[in-house]
Amino acid sequence: MMKLSKKEIQEKIANLSDWTYNENAIHTKIEFENFKEAFSFMTRVAFEAEAQAHHPEWTNVYNQVEVSLATHDAGGVTQKDFQLAKTIDQLLGEE
Amino acid sequence: MMKLSKKEIQEKIANLSDWTYNENAIHTKIEFENFKEAFSFMTRVAFEAEAQAHHPEWTNVYNQVEVSLATHDAGGVTQKDFQLAKTIDQLLGEE
Repeated sequence: MMKLSKKEIQEKIANLSDWTYNENAIHTKIEFENFKEAFSFMTRVAFEAEAQAHHPEWTNVYNQVEVSLATHDAGGVTQKDFQLAKTIDQLLGEE
Repeated sequence: MMKLSKKEIQEKIANLSDWTYNENAIHTKIEFENFKEAFSFMTRVAFEAEAQAHHPEWTNVYNQVEVSLATHDAGGVTQKDFQLAKTIDQLLGEE
């Protein structure tokens, strides 16, 4: 899996909902109504991440979830990250 | 809920498994076999946290889970944090 160039990342990120690129990863921050909603969302993402064999770095504090995606083996952002980001956006769209 | 003194925290933390106190919170870091095990554990904690109406700040990267507990309203660590920490230790003991 090849690391994407900055130009490629900027093009692809434009198709996502609310993601930013910095420090060699793509990031989003999502706010939910409460902890239960936040963790339920994480659970749905967890199953998809496992299925894609690609896992997020994520932090949860009460109703907030911060997600960072990177491909450590490639030393940056790859198509796998955009695939999982797209899945996350789709799950959010279903909320 | 009253903020505990440093002395009280140090006494209580001695009864826990592998927690440290710094920056006005208590912290632990747990390593699991893989993502599935890590997230399954988080799910069990999530239900207990919700039941205790007290929620962790936590980060997961693949098989690792870092947990920080503090009581924001009290500006430090309270009995509620030790209650949840003890629950987490008990769940780990059942693994």
